[in-house]
Amino acid sequence: MRKVEHIGIAVNSIADAGKIYEVLLNTLVYKIEDVESEGVKTAFLQSGPNKIELLESASPGSPIAKFIEKRGEGIHHIAFDVEDIEAEMARLKAAGFVLLNDKPKPGADNKLVCFVHPKSTNGVLIELCQGIK
Amino acid sequence: MRKVEHIGIAVNSIADAGKIYEVLLNTLVYKIEDVESEGVKTAFLQSGPNKIELLESASPGSPIAKFIEKRGEGIHHIAFDVEDIEAEMARLKAAGFVLLNDKPKPGADNKLVCFVHPKSTNGVLIELCQGIK
Repeated sequence: MRKVEHIGIAVNSIADAGKIYEVLLNTLVYKIEDVESEGVKTAFLQSGPNKIELLESASPGSPIAKFIEKRGEGIHHIAFDVEDIEAEMARLKAAGFVLLNDKPKPGADNKLVCFVHPKSTNGVLIELCQGIK
Repeated sequence: MRKVEHIGIAVNSIADAGKIYEVLLNTLVYKIEDVESEGVKTAFLQSGPNKIELLESASPGSPIAKFIEKRGEGIHHIAFDVEDIEAEMARLKAAGFVLLNDKPKPGADNKLVCFVHPKSTNGVLIELCQGIK
Protein backbone atom coordinates (compact mmCIF):
# COMPACT_ATOMS: atom_id res chain seq x y z
CA MET A 1 0.00 0.00 0.00
CA ARG A 2 2.25 2.75 -1.27
CA LYS A 3 -0.23 5.65 -1.21
CA VAL A 4 -3.87 6.60 -1.73
CA GLU A 5 -4.05 6.26 -5.50
CA HIS A 6 -7.50 7.81 -5.70
CA ILE A 7 -10.76 8.39 -3.85
CA GLY A 8 -13.90 7.44 -5.75
CA ILE A 9 -16.94 9.71 -5.32
CA ALA A 10 -20.39 8.64 -6.57
CA VAL A 11 -22.19 11.56 -8.23
CA ASN A 12 -25.37 12.05 -10.25
CA SER A 13 -23.54 13.84 -13.08
CA ILE A 14 -19.83 14.00 -13.74
CA ALA A 15 -20.48 17.10 -15.90
CA ASP A 16 -21.99 18.99 -12.95
CA ALA A 17 -19.76 17.54 -10.22
CA GLY A 18 -16.70 18.00 -12.43
CA LYS A 19 -17.31 21.76 -12.47
CA ILE A 20 -17.62 21.83 -8.66
CA TYR A 21 -14.47 19.77 -8.07
CA GLU A 22 -12.51 21.79 -10.62
CA VAL A 23 -13.16 24.88 -8.49
CA LEU A 24 -12.66 23.07 -5.19
CA LEU A 25 -9.34 21.53 -6.17
CA ASN A 26 -8.30 24.45 -8.39
CA THR A 27 -7.41 22.09 -11.24
CA LEU A 28 -9.14 20.78 -14.38
CA VAL A 29 -10.64 17.35 -15.05
CA TYR A 30 -7.83 15.79 -17.09
CA LYS A 31 -9.52 12.59 -18.23
CA ILE A 32 -13.03 11.26 -18.79
CA GLU A 33 -13.32 7.52 -19.34
CA ASP A 34 -16.16 5.00 -19.70
CA VAL A 35 -15.69 1.70 -17.88
CA GLU A 36 -18.34 -0.34 -19.65
CA SER A 37 -17.73 -3.52 -17.60
CA GLU A 38 -18.75 -1.60 -14.44
CA GLY A 39 -21.52 0.44 -16.07
CA VAL A 40 -19.83 3.68 -15.08
CA LYS A 41 -18.46 6.93 -16.48
CA THR A 42 -15.45 8.36 -14.68
CA ALA A 43 -13.74 11.76 -14.52
CA PHE A 44 -10.33 12.30 -12.92
CA LEU A 45 -8.77 15.29 -11.18
CA GLN A 46 -5.26 15.40 -9.74
CA SER A 47 -4.33 16.60 -6.25
CA GLY A 48 -0.57 16.30 -5.91
CA PRO A 49 0.26 12.57 -5.74
CA ASN A 50 -3.44 11.63 -5.45
CA LYS A 51 -6.52 11.63 -7.67
CA ILE A 52 -10.22 12.19 -7.23
CA GLU A 53 -12.34 9.89 -9.41
CA LEU A 54 -15.90 11.06 -9.98
CA LEU A 55 -18.23 8.15 -10.78
CA GLU A 56 -21.52 8.48 -12.66
CA SER A 57 -23.75 5.50 -13.35
CA ALA A 58 -24.08 4.66 -17.04
CA SER A 59 -26.75 1.96 -16.59
CA PRO A 60 -29.73 1.67 -14.20
CA GLY A 61 -28.59 -1.42 -12.23
CA SER A 62 -24.91 -0.52 -11.88
CA PRO A 63 -23.16 -0.54 -8.50
CA ILE A 64 -22.99 3.28 -8.57
CA ALA A 65 -26.71 3.57 -9.33
CA LYS A 66 -27.46 1.27 -6.38
CA PHE A 67 -25.09 3.17 -4.09
CA ILE A 68 -26.70 6.54 -4.88
CA GLU A 69 -30.21 5.10 -4.58
CA LYS A 70 -29.38 3.81 -1.10
CA ARG A 71 -27.13 6.56 0.33
CA GLY A 72 -27.16 9.52 -2.04
CA GLU A 73 -24.08 11.07 -3.59
CA GLY A 74 -20.88 10.69 -1.59
CA ILE A 75 -17.57 8.92 -1.11
CA HIS A 76 -17.76 5.44 -2.65
CA HIS A 77 -14.32 3.89 -2.18
CA ILE A 78 -10.65 4.43 -1.36
CA ALA A 79 -8.08 2.99 -3.78
CA PHE A 80 -4.55 2.19 -2.63
CA ASP A 81 -1.65 1.91 -5.04
CA VAL A 82 0.12 -1.45 -4.81
CA GLU A 83 3.25 -2.66 -6.51
CA ASP A 84 2.18 -6.32 -6.90
CA ILE A 85 -1.58 -6.77 -6.77
CA GLU A 86 -1.51 -10.59 -6.75
CA ALA A 87 0.86 -10.64 -3.78
CA GLU A 88 -1.28 -8.10 -1.89
CA MET A 89 -4.45 -10.07 -2.67
CA ALA A 90 -2.83 -13.25 -1.33
CA ARG A 91 -1.58 -11.43 1.77
CA LEU A 92 -4.99 -9.93 2.57
CA LYS A 93 -6.90 -13.14 1.82
CA ALA A 94 -4.61 -15.06 4.18
CA ALA A 95 -5.28 -12.43 6.85
CA GLY A 96 -9.04 -12.98 6.57
CA PHE A 97 -10.11 -10.03 4.43
CA VAL A 98 -12.95 -10.78 2.00
CA LEU A 99 -11.95 -10.04 -1.60
CA LEU A 100 -14.70 -9.27 -4.13
CA ASN A 101 -12.81 -10.76 -7.06
CA ASP A 102 -10.55 -13.82 -7.25
CA LYS A 103 -8.31 -12.41 -9.95
CA PRO A 104 -7.27 -8.82 -10.68
CA LYS A 105 -9.56 -7.23 -13.25
CA PRO A 106 -9.11 -4.26 -15.58
CA GLY A 107 -10.33 -0.96 -14.06
CA ALA A 108 -10.35 2.67 -15.14
CA ASP A 109 -7.14 4.59 -15.79
CA ASN A 110 -5.13 1.63 -17.09
CA LYS A 111 -5.09 -0.29 -13.81
CA LEU A 112 -5.53 -3.83 -12.58
CA VAL A 113 -7.88 -3.72 -9.62
CA CYS A 114 -9.38 -5.81 -6.83
CA PHE A 115 -11.99 -4.75 -4.28
CA VAL A 116 -12.09 -5.70 -0.60
CA HIS A 117 -15.57 -6.20 0.91
CA PRO A 118 -16.49 -3.35 3.32
CA LYS A 119 -17.69 -5.83 5.93
CA SER A 120 -14.05 -6.70 6.65
CA THR A 121 -12.87 -3.05 6.68
CA ASN A 122 -15.29 -1.15 8.96
CA GLY A 123 -17.75 -0.23 6.24
CA VAL A 124 -15.14 1.10 3.81
CA LEU A 125 -14.97 -0.24 0.25
CA ILE A 126 -11.25 -0.60 -0.45
CA GLU A 127 -9.75 -0.99 -3.93
CA LEU A 128 -6.24 -2.23 -4.61
CA CYS A 129 -4.84 -0.98 -7.87
CA GLN A 130 -1.68 -1.66 -9.79
CA GLY A 131 -0.66 0.31 -12.86
CA ILE A 132 -0.42 -1.74 -16.05
CA LYS A 133 3.04 -1.30 -17.50
CA MET B 1 -4.98 21.68 -2.42
CA ARG B 2 -1.57 20.08 -2.51
CA LYS B 3 -2.57 16.48 -1.74
CA VAL B 4 -4.97 14.30 0.21
CA GLU B 5 -3.61 14.86 3.70
CA HIS B 6 -5.78 12.17 5.25
CA ILE B 7 -9.04 10.27 4.95
CA GLY B 8 -11.16 10.15 8.11
CA ILE B 9 -13.00 6.88 8.84
CA ALA B 10 -15.68 6.70 11.55
CA VAL B 11 -15.37 3.48 13.57
CA ASN B 12 -16.91 2.03 16.72
CA SER B 13 -13.53 1.30 18.30
CA ILE B 14 -10.11 2.58 17.27
CA ALA B 15 -8.57 -0.32 19.21
CA ASP B 16 -10.39 -2.89 17.05
CA ALA B 17 -10.28 -0.96 13.77
CA GLY B 18 -6.63 -0.07 14.37
CA LYS B 19 -5.72 -3.77 14.33
CA ILE B 20 -7.61 -4.27 11.06
CA TYR B 21 -6.05 -1.26 9.34
CA GLU B 22 -2.58 -2.17 10.60
CA VAL B 23 -2.90 -5.46 8.70
CA LEU B 24 -4.59 -3.90 5.69
CA LEU B 25 -2.00 -1.15 5.26
CA ASN B 26 0.88 -3.26 6.54
CA THR B 27 1.97 -0.52 8.92
CA LEU B 28 1.43 0.34 12.59
CA VAL B 29 -0.77 3.01 14.15
CA TYR B 30 1.83 5.67 14.90
CA LYS B 31 -0.25 8.10 16.93
CA ILE B 32 -3.37 8.10 19.09
CA GLU B 33 -4.75 11.49 20.04
CA ASP B 34 -7.85 12.80 21.80
CA VAL B 35 -9.48 15.86 20.27
CA GLU B 36 -11.66 16.95 23.17
CA SER B 37 -13.22 19.92 21.36
CA GLU B 38 -14.71 17.48 18.79
CA GLY B 39 -15.53 14.72 21.28
CA VAL B 40 -13.38 12.25 19.36
CA LYS B 41 -10.43 9.89 19.76
CA THR B 42 -8.22 9.53 16.69
CA ALA B 43 -5.63 7.00 15.52
CA PHE B 44 -3.32 7.62 12.56
CA LEU B 45 -1.68 5.28 10.05
CA GLN B 46 0.62 6.34 7.23
CA SER B 47 0.31 5.27 3.58
CA GLY B 48 3.15 6.92 1.68
CA PRO B 49 2.37 10.66 1.49
CA ASN B 50 -1.14 10.12 2.92
CA LYS B 51 -2.71 9.18 6.25
CA ILE B 52 -5.73 7.26 7.42
CA GLU B 53 -7.37 8.79 10.49
CA LEU B 54 -9.62 6.44 12.46
CA LEU B 55 -12.27 8.33 14.44
CA GLU B 56 -14.04 6.98 17.52
CA SER B 57 -16.67 8.96 19.36
CA ALA B 58 -15.64 9.95 22.89
CA SER B 59 -19.03 11.41 23.87
CA PRO B 60 -22.63 10.40 23.06
CA GLY B 61 -23.69 13.47 21.06
CA SER B 62 -20.49 13.99 19.08
CA PRO B 63 -20.52 14.35 15.28
CA ILE B 64 -18.93 10.88 14.94
CA ALA B 65 -21.56 9.30 17.21
CA LYS B 66 -24.30 10.89 15.09
CA PHE B 67 -22.65 9.80 11.84
CA ILE B 68 -22.37 6.16 12.94
CA GLU B 69 -25.92 6.17 14.32
CA LYS B 70 -27.22 7.37 10.95
CA ARG B 71 -24.98 5.53 8.46
CA GLY B 72 -22.88 2.98 10.34
CA GLU B 73 -19.11 2.83 10.27
CA GLY B 74 -17.48 4.18 7.11
CA ILE B 75 -15.63 7.02 5.41
CA HIS B 76 -16.40 10.28 7.19
CA HIS B 77 -14.36 12.95 5.40
CA ILE B 78 -11.49 13.76 3.03
CA ALA B 79 -8.87 16.25 4.20
CA PHE B 80 -6.77 18.19 1.72
CA ASP B 81 -3.46 19.74 2.64
CA VAL B 82 -3.35 23.48 1.97
CA GLU B 83 -0.48 25.92 2.24
CA ASP B 84 -2.55 28.93 3.37
CA ILE B 85 -5.87 27.95 4.93
CA GLU B 86 -7.21 31.49 5.22
CA ALA B 87 -6.57 32.16 1.54
CA GLU B 88 -8.22 28.85 0.54
CA MET B 89 -11.22 29.58 2.79
CA ALA B 90 -11.63 32.99 1.17
CA ARG B 91 -11.29 31.50 -2.33
CA LEU B 92 -13.89 28.79 -1.68
CA LYS B 93 -16.33 31.11 0.09
CA ALA B 94 -16.16 33.54 -2.84
CA ALA B 95 -16.89 30.60 -5.19
CA GLY B 96 -20.08 29.75 -3.25
CA PHE B 97 -18.93 26.81 -1.12
CA VAL B 98 -20.48 26.67 2.34
CA LEU B 99 -17.83 26.68 5.08
CA LEU B 100 -18.70 25.17 8.46
CA ASN B 101 -16.44 27.51 10.41
CA ASP B 102 -15.63 31.18 9.86
CA LYS B 103 -12.09 30.95 11.19
CA PRO B 104 -9.57 28.08 11.08
CA LYS B 105 -9.76 26.00 14.27
CA PRO B 106 -7.28 23.60 15.88
CA GLY B 107 -7.72 19.98 14.74
CA ALA B 108 -5.93 16.70 15.39
CA ASP B 109 -2.30 16.16 14.41
CA ASN B 110 -1.18 19.77 14.98
CA LYS B 111 -3.28 21.29 12.18
CA LEU B 112 -5.49 24.28 11.60
CA VAL B 113 -8.66 23.05 9.95
CA CYS B 114 -11.87 24.18 8.28
CA PHE B 115 -14.73 22.01 7.03
CA VAL B 116 -16.77 22.52 3.87
CA HIS B 117 -20.46 21.56 4.05
CA PRO B 118 -21.20 18.37 2.05
CA LYS B 119 -24.25 19.99 0.44
CA SER B 120 -21.90 22.07 -1.70
CA THR B 121 -19.59 19.15 -2.56
CA ASN B 122 -21.84 16.28 -3.72
CA GLY B 123 -22.36 14.77 -0.29
CA VAL B 124 -18.66 14.72 0.63
CA LEU B 125 -17.48 16.33 3.86
CA ILE B 126 -14.24 18.11 2.92
CA GLU B 127 -11.66 19.32 5.41
CA LEU B 128 -8.94 21.83 4.62
CA CYS B 129 -5.91 21.48 6.81
CA GLN B 130 -2.73 23.44 7.22
CA GLY B 131 0.16 22.28 9.37
CA ILE B 132 0.99 24.54 12.31
CA LYS B 133 4.61 25.57 12.04
